[in-house]
Amino acid sequence: MKLATLKDGSRDGQLAVVSRDGTTAHFAAGIARTMRQLLDDWNFISPQLEDLAATLNGGKARHAFPFEPRQCMAPLPRASRWVDGSAYLNHVALVRRARGAELPPEMLNDPLMYAGAADDFAGPCDDAVFASAGDGIDFEAELAVVTGDIPQGTGAAAALDGVRLLMLVNDWTLRGRVAAELAKGFGFLHSKPGVACGPLAVTPDELGEAWQGGRAHLTLQARLNGREVGRCATGPDMHFHFGQLVAHAAATRRLRAGTVVGSGTVSNAGGAQGWCCVAEKRAMEIIDSGEAATPYLQHGDTVRLEATDAQGHSVFGAIEQRVAPVPAPER
Amino acid sequence: MKLATLKDGSRDGQLAVVSRDGTTAHFAAGIARTMRQLLDDWNFISPQLEDLAATLNGGKARHAFPFEPRQCMAPLPRASRWVDGSAYLNHVALVRRARGAELPPEMLNDPLMYAGAADDFAGPCDDAVFASAGDGIDFEAELAVVTGDIPQGTGAAAALDGVRLLMLVNDWTLRGRVAAELAKGFGFLHSKPGVACGPLAVTPDELGEAWQGGRAHLTLQARLNGREVGRCATGPDMHFHFGQLVAHAAATRRLRAGTVVGSGTVSNAGGAQGWCCVAEKRAMEIIDSGEAATPYLQHGDTVRLEATDAQGHSVFGAIEQRVAPVPAPER
Repeated sequence: MKLATLKDGSRDGQLAVVSRDGTTAHFAAGIARTMRQLLDDWNFISPQLEDLAATLNGGKARHAFPFEPRQCMAPLPRASRWVDGSAYLNHVALVRRARGAELPPEMLNDPLMYAGAADDFAGPCDDAVFASAGDGIDFEAELAVVTGDIPQGTGAAAALDGVRLLMLVNDWTLRGRVAAELAKGFGFLHSKPGVACGPLAVTPDELGEAWQGGRAHLTLQARLNGREVGRCATGPDMHFHFGQLVAHAAATRRLRAGTVVGSGTVSNAGGAQGWCCVAEKRAMEIIDSGEAATPYLQHGDTVRLEATDAQGHSVFGAIEQRVAPVPAPER
Repeated sequence: MKLATLKDGSRDGQLAVVSRDGTTAHFAAGIARTMRQLLDDWNFISPQLEDLAATLNGGKARHAFPFEPRQCMAPLPRASRWVDGSAYLNHVALVRRARGAELPPEMLNDPLMYAGAADDFAGPCDDAVFASAGDGIDFEAELAVVTGDIPQGTGAAAALDGVRLLMLVNDWTLRGRVAAELAKGFGFLHSKPGVACGPLAVTPDELGEAWQGGRAHLTLQARLNGREVGRCATGPDMHFHFGQLVAHAAATRRLRAGTVVGSGTVSNAGGAQGWCCVAEKRAMEIIDSGEAATPYLQHGDTVRLEATDAQGHSVFGAIEQRVAPVPAPER
């Protein structure tokens, strides 16, 4: 089942079921009004939505309408928790190598994970609003899962069973503010201003064979100002699978339904598949020539992210964002 | 106006107005069902609740009932965002001095602040559930504010105008896991498992003269297993006021209504007023004698926190929690 949340002027939007091919939608009203309602009561509500999805996919839904990603909010516009792992160790290793540091061996067993802001996930086509390009504006293309309730101390296998939905996310990062916040040790606050989500949240079964061992085996394409800069494989180089990341987040506390757990920037070893964040490209440049040449993003730049399956079908729809200044009335 | 959220079997509970003296309550149903609804639409809903509060305080409310803090959830059981500053620099200085480190001068201008978990604020009398006392279980008595929508880049004065409510919070901390997470630089994940809230969230005007310059001038009493260990002044040693803390959180992103911003552990210079977390007592012991003598909390220990005004009246009601092991079915 594929789900989206459509703009209706409210903070949580309106839940809709979307056809597998992403062309038509049907409001879930009458079953659940919001994604949060669905996640709060998954076992009761999701079978009813699965029925609606089957009817919609069969072309028999009575009130279907054309699906328009630009009308989408994030599938879960206000989550309760957003934690983001660094499961693609190649990304971590590359960024460290560029500053002359090694990958500490404990990182093979102990995921890096930060707690971010879940109060304001942006829709797939919403502007990414930043005051200053001097802060080193960067995108990070990732996958994420949305969980059900996860008891404290759950193991990785059981945690994987708690995965309800998968999403595509763009974890915006202000690189110029990262070093100072790493030095403070209290985590990312200013440097991780927000996350945007692809239009569709999908149940793992929608991925078919591509969902294996807690990893999604998809191709993630990243375009910067229309030019393809990355075409990365999301499966093979994901060192920690999603069950391990969820279990890590639940090690000392229970997680409540609607927790979003990110994979960290998708990254493949070798560099032939390009890059899913500018920082990685710059790290490669520094390693190769001693100097970073690719600039971070400026106001007006656009980012497009999309994940496709082996048949080339878009799984989550595309994130298409423009970097924009803070609007005047907001200052 | 004083507000509480009562347990009704749902995840968000049921909003109630509570009399100034904390003895009677009245459900807000018909005006707003949940605290989140109120915060989402504050300007429209809060005047109606103020009317109800006036009627309740006048003893004229038609469906008033005795207020029972044990029936309370956190006032906002699921917030969208929890960020916690370290506004009481004495706490930071003390903990650092115990490990031979100085307070870096930039901390006078740049608040330490971490992003924590907002998905599961515990009620005032809920057990604090931790797997192992070996993790160094500690409480932290703090105040916090709940904000409305705060635009990106808002200054401290305007941010202060965005404060809707004040709360008393207990920021549980696993001290044994802090050092490793500080070293990773990605912030607190395992070491900050959750927060409990006092039963009442109150509008700033309820504090009268005690709300001045963005600081609440109250007396915060901390009891450990029934014994008073702290009787701290919350006003004078709060280096950053709440407007500054909210503005810091909004420096690179807007904050959405329902953001909770903490003060950090309340702490007074000199030590005569006792302590609001065990870590601080242990730091004083290390500074005095080279060795920490006071143990962290064990399963079965109880913590009681309460803030009173100059007349000795309880402002937020009390937090009374027991440290408990993870229940068997949850493992």
